[in-house]
Amino acid sequence: MKKAVILLSGGLDSTTCMAVAKAEGYELYPISFDYGQKHDRELALASKIAEHYSAAEHRVIKMQNIGGSALTDSDIEVPEYSEDGGVPVTYVPARNLLFLSYALGYAEVVGADAIFIGVSSVDYSGYPDCRPEFIDAFRKMVEVGTVAGLEGNPIEIVTPLIDLSKAETVKLGVKLGAPYEYTTSCYNGEEEACGVCDSCVLRLRGFQEAGIEDPIAYKKLT
Amino acid sequence: MKKAVILLSGGLDSTTCMAVAKAEGYELYPISFDYGQKHDRELALASKIAEHYSAAEHRVIKMQNIGGSALTDSDIEVPEYSEDGGVPVTYVPARNLLFLSYALGYAEVVGADAIFIGVSSVDYSGYPDCRPEFIDAFRKMVEVGTVAGLEGNPIEIVTPLIDLSKAETVKLGVKLGAPYEYTTSCYNGEEEACGVCDSCVLRLRGFQEAGIEDPIAYKKLT
Repeated sequence: MKKAVILLSGGLDSTTCMAVAKAEGYELYPISFDYGQKHDRELALASKIAEHYSAAEHRVIKMQNIGGSALTDSDIEVPEYSEDGGVPVTYVPARNLLFLSYALGYAEVVGADAIFIGVSSVDYSGYPDCRPEFIDAFRKMVEVGTVAGLEGNPIEIVTPLIDLSKAETVKLGVKLGAPYEYTTSCYNGEEEACGVCDSCVLRLRGFQEAGIEDPIAYKKLT
Repeated sequence: MKKAVILLSGGLDSTTCMAVAKAEGYELYPISFDYGQKHDRELALASKIAEHYSAAEHRVIKMQNIGGSALTDSDIEVPEYSEDGGVPVTYVPARNLLFLSYALGYAEVVGADAIFIGVSSVDYSGYPDCRPEFIDAFRKMVEVGTVAGLEGNPIEIVTPLIDLSKAETVKLGVKLGAPYEYTTSCYNGEEEACGVCDSCVLRLRGFQEAGIEDPIAYKKLT
């Protein structure tokens, strides 16, 4: 049975990746990160989702916080949604690179064929390490920097959502039966999602455009 | 003053990198890793070396061990030196990638201009992630996956030892006054270096070819 490592945050996108990998017949090895985010509610949800999909193993990596982001540094406030186009203060330096690097090490150890990551080039927050160019550069590194790569059989980096809008992701996940009721996308991480941070706004728009009701609760609906 | 993050293991190569970065006028931000290696003697030595060079800050990152290597997994024995050409069991999956990724995050946070890493394409252990192709792939990723990169000012990845044999590295370090008496290279990590593992053998050969006496003590000299 082919094996896949899935970057699982407990959010909408990564849960959709679990659903896609499951549908494609992979044995699932989700990996989640405790990187000093302000809340660990998303880790508890990630465990629930891993269990829902009968994952072979769910690895949680404790990562030391390097600082410099509103998501990990308690001195920086999480802002409300804006469309000013710059890199937001919620950007965590080298975060996706670290996530993918740990996933790659894990994939080498368990002998996985693929790593699934839920980045999208359509509806995204403007982080440089979510862009297709970044994923391509990482693929190149897997080819030249791993044992499997040198043997001509590099671990595949799969991005099933790369060309999908948030609405299309929602439709795909619902079609595959993804348990969205267990997910959270809110940067503030309380029991009820805030409904006003970047991440909540993108998610709510996605459900709205898909014509599907978001199963989770919100404090405030814009 | 320009700033450099230096990957500092407490070994010969990384200590030479500290010496080179210092000589080039950088303010020094060494970073070391506690990654479940079987000993932490090298971390204590790294601190000594950071202090010797009056580093602005020495960051030690505690990394969770992913397993699968003789250097981190107590079920796998560290082998003696051999020249069979394969990837040795001391290979740690994705290790240099993780090290460089953390260094990149740290460099973004402190606003560093460069990251120094002591890899060499001449005398090395056969790890895929020590090769120049890997470093080039990482550079490409820095260009497309970081804020500074997108602004046309990517953090530089400096490899001062890439074309040097171990003997040339030793000569360079001695010329720059590198405190080699504080370094260790042994995979077994006891008070006295074993003198027979890959890493000890490469180091001893380097000193011999350079015609310089290694200032550290060995249990056994081959």
